[in-house]
Amino acid sequence: MDFAIGCSLAYTVNSPAALVFNLEAATLPRQVVRSESLTTHPPIEPERYTAPETGNRFARFVVNRGSFRLDYRADVTLDPLIQDPAAVGEFQAQDLPMTTLPHLYASRYCQSDKLSRFATRQFGNEPSGYQRVTAICNWIYGNVDYISGTTDAMTSAFDTVTQRSGVCRDFAHLGIALCRAMGIPARYVSAYAWRLVPPDFHAVFEAYLAGPAGGAWYLFDPTRMTGVDGLVRIGIGRDAADVAFCSIFGDVVSGPPQVWIDGPDSSALVTTAAVSLQAPE
Amino acid sequence: MDFAIGCSLAYTVNSPAALVFNLEAATLPRQVVRSESLTTHPPIEPERYTAPETGNRFARFVVNRGSFRLDYRADVTLDPLIQDPAAVGEFQAQDLPMTTLPHLYASRYCQSDKLSRFATRQFGNEPSGYQRVTAICNWIYGNVDYISGTTDAMTSAFDTVTQRSGVCRDFAHLGIALCRAMGIPARYVSAYAWRLVPPDFHAVFEAYLAGPAGGAWYLFDPTRMTGVDGLVRIGIGRDAADVAFCSIFGDVVSGPPQVWIDGPDSSALVTTAAVSLQAPE
Amino acid sequence: MDFAIGCSLAYTVNSPAALVFNLEAATLPRQVVRSESLTTHPPIEPERYTAPETGNRFARFVVNRGSFRLDYRADVTLDPLIQDPAAVGEFQAQDLPMTTLPHLYASRYCQSDKLSRFATRQFGNEPSGYQRVTAICNWIYGNVDYISGTTDAMTSAFDTVTQRSGVCRDFAHLGIALCRAMGIPARYVSAYAWRLVPPDFHAVFEAYLAGPAGGAWYLFDPTRMTGVDGLVRIGIGRDAADVAFCSIFGDVVSGPPQVWIDGPDSSALVTTAAVSLQAPE
Amino acid sequence: MDFAIGCSLAYTVNSPAALVFNLEAATLPRQVVRSESLTTHPPIEPERYTAPETGNRFARFVVNRGSFRLDYRADVTLDPLIQDPAAVGEFQAQDLPMTTLPHLYASRYCQSDKLSRFATRQFGNEPSGYQRVTAICNWIYGNVDYISGTTDAMTSAFDTVTQRSGVCRDFAHLGIALCRAMGIPARYVSAYAWRLVPPDFHAVFEAYLAGPAGGAWYLFDPTRMTGVDGLVRIGIGRDAADVAFCSIFGDVVSGPPQVWIDGPDSSALVTTAAVSLQAPE
Repeated sequence: MDFAIGCSLAYTVNSPAALVFNLEAATLPRQVVRSESLTTHPPIEPERYTAPETGNRFARFVVNRGSFRLDYRADVTLDPLIQDPAAVGEFQAQDLPMTTLPHLYASRYCQSDKLSRFATRQFGNEPSGYQRVTAICNWIYGNVDYISGTTDAMTSAFDTVTQRSGVCRDFAHLGIALCRAMGIPARYVSAYAWRLVPPDFHAVFEAYLAGPAGGAWYLFDPTRMTGVDGLVRIGIGRDAADVAFCSIFGDVVSGPPQVWIDGPDSSALVTTAAVSLQAPE
Repeated sequence: MDFAIGCSLAYTVNSPAALVFNLEAATLPRQVVRSESLTTHPPIEPERYTAPETGNRFARFVVNRGSFRLDYRADVTLDPLIQDPAAVGEFQAQDLPMTTLPHLYASRYCQSDKLSRFATRQFGNEPSGYQRVTAICNWIYGNVDYISGTTDAMTSAFDTVTQRSGVCRDFAHLGIALCRAMGIPARYVSAYAWRLVPPDFHAVFEAYLAGPAGGAWYLFDPTRMTGVDGLVRIGIGRDAADVAFCSIFGDVVSGPPQVWIDGPDSSALVTTAAVSLQAPE
Repeated sequence: MDFAIGCSLAYTVNSPAALVFNLEAATLPRQVVRSESLTTHPPIEPERYTAPETGNRFARFVVNRGSFRLDYRADVTLDPLIQDPAAVGEFQAQDLPMTTLPHLYASRYCQSDKLSRFATRQFGNEPSGYQRVTAICNWIYGNVDYISGTTDAMTSAFDTVTQRSGVCRDFAHLGIALCRAMGIPARYVSAYAWRLVPPDFHAVFEAYLAGPAGGAWYLFDPTRMTGVDGLVRIGIGRDAADVAFCSIFGDVVSGPPQVWIDGPDSSALVTTAAVSLQAPE
Repeated sequence: MDFAIGCSLAYTVNSPAALVFNLEAATLPRQVVRSESLTTHPPIEPERYTAPETGNRFARFVVNRGSFRLDYRADVTLDPLIQDPAAVGEFQAQDLPMTTLPHLYASRYCQSDKLSRFATRQFGNEPSGYQRVTAICNWIYGNVDYISGTTDAMTSAFDTVTQRSGVCRDFAHLGIALCRAMGIPARYVSAYAWRLVPPDFHAVFEAYLAGPAGGAWYLFDPTRMTGVDGLVRIGIGRDAADVAFCSIFGDVVSGPPQVWIDGPDSSALVTTAAVSLQAPE
């Protein structure tokens, strides 16, 4: 499926500052960036860096006082791996690839260490694998209200499991924390999300599971606001701390971001398949 | 029912100190202290104070360096009000006695303000009154593990609802917080508890409900370790901060407390009746 | 000194609701309410209650759907006790009146139990009494930024000591927590505050100290936004949970409160005297 | 300098389990492992993995029910870079290598986002670079008590900055959080520590600073229990979550670890030099 994505971000820079963006589409086995452009006003040449272990793409701009605007647009083709959820199981700790172990550790917003007793009680008797992660997502969807403005940049999964409200970022953090507490590696995904209303940067998560052709990272969206077949990935990380779309160093005021994504008209939401953007490892 | 209660507490006092005890049985309409003695070694005359609004009894001892031991024993008769739970309902906010409103407020260990969304979702559709508080107790019993040593003096209901383990104090705090979050006044009760194994100071809670003869504070023990008809009350408060059995001011080391209670042999645990130690107000 | 105070509060009531107000001036030995009026539109007769131990005045209105407005105005004379700070000392735990002990306990927003090590290190070597509490206020003023919007109804002293920003409520909570951690009873005070800009309900705190004529509760305002000689008291409590100016039970939307206070023109801020509204006890 | 290090760890395995160890000395430009052995009883062949971005060495053992013991010993030569602290400055955000940016993010135990206001106030006026990090370490040493048993595996920098007690792990977390809050990349280091009494695994931290020959990670130990020239590194990470010396998956009971390190007799503690185990980048 082909998508056209983009965003336009405006800033007022009150003193010389550095801005680090992570909003370009990643290049993955099943996500091809056919063309793209990143421009700024005033035009500034960024320093670029792609993290080897994640593929996250960073661009750092050193900006002088005044207005600063960044425009990004790209054409991306997704060919997600779509599998039968019933065929996607779970690894024992002894069989997990060593590279996935760090995604079992607690992180800033996903304090899985504090949620182990709750997770075990609530999800310990669910069928393992894709079904267990789906049970986690269903629980979040059924027990947490999606309400803008009830949480902020300091809200973590430990807060959300009790306070029961939040936005996509909070839903993803709670999903990640509960997966890790159950021994399932999980990581945060920032994305352009097809059919998200209103359009915005979106956050979902991936769990590492045992597919029919081997282990892979499968996408989950506990907000149910999008289909996981229409997520153009930006970055991955342990939690939101790793994949801010813009990190600001200096006295800078942000305007509201404009984000968009266009895709094929006719497709229905895929909600019943296991979806991954990676070839099995 | 007649009970003989008591405790023996030993301290090593490393510098002149003040110790404030709150461990004597309260005098209530349905709890009569027939006889009692409070002695110390070395013998010291305490300053005594009974708080007018709670009936909590305090005794303050100014103690010199050395060993200090306190022995308390009392004979107490309980005549609890026992009612049909089905006849005990709930007040609307507009009908609650104004004196009970402070027991709706959040306190140190019972952050009801943080639990309102969870409480409403989980218990909002339960039948109101005694049944709703019972549903809260059942949920605690079913979802929190009673394990000594997993919590400490800083653990609050906000922790317990997530971490899912604790002791009687934590169970009571969570019950109180959830009641308050549902608009039901609730308070903490410290007690000598008949048939508690091993014997120790116990913590339960009371909820203010609408009984057939008027409003009253009804006892609940979400640990299910005792029957609420065999609780000899010491003190009441917003949470454990109000009713420590000993507050120490100075460099003092405590030995393990010895606590006991003897009651009639034959009685079964009352677990299906609504029990109150107060005449309806 | 004579003051004219008042407020006007407007609500949109979406379903029948109960509103409990605590915004009328208290009657104290050194605070005389010469005249006052409390009216509402539509006119409703409230249920009234004055708490015996605090003197806090509550008025409960049962309100139907629609608009609801409350207007309060009063003429109040303050005759505060003004003493030399150097003559105001501190009690040992053994000498504190038993009635003040509950104001040593940790409460929802003043977790003194978590701050004892910090308080002892930071303020343990200060001169005791009024000077130590002044040192606490100075530390708060010097280390916490007064910034509206950085905190909310869930923010507590434990947050503020680390995050270092807040409003009058947060400043008071931190002052209370640090006093209690040092063994000084402290409580929250809501007030109409002369010369507060912009006019609003204000929050300060009182510490129980040993004045030249006996123990008394002395006023402190760590925000330095007012003089403590121009505070018309509304209520006292362990923290803000006890003295909300309006507790709402039901689906009600609040408008912005209008609050005012007029006093004598010429007076300078009293910032160097120990001030109490109570006769020594 | 030459060191002989080692440890012996014993476990009771109650059901088949996986144990992942990260306790072998790392290989670094200035840390050479001359010889080493890792043996177990019963003998089991581990799966091995060295993380490319950190050099952390993991060994995973699948263990059956029964006793399990692991013995590690190694001969290691350290040739630390020792520089004049006055020559070690600080990077502006625009000049930091992109690879170091993730070490500015908040992590599970180092919530730098919550500490920025405190850090700026306390350390904003210190001379930049090595001196600023030293000021942070001095503040920690002067304001936090080293007391075993006052913290646990859930304690974070946000707790420690308020509660003011902890062990090496807590000291390191606080140092990291404060550095990140000041814009200085910082990471956690687990190590065998020469002259640590009693011998145990130790935790310190590194800050990324601008040395005379380029950027490098410099070692800091805010506990002052060791000299940073005698730290044989095991692993690095964002915080303790990344470098547990043993991660247990299954029902396993640990015995107390035995840890040792022998080094040259005569050397004095290096406390006044800037020390790094890496060549400047």
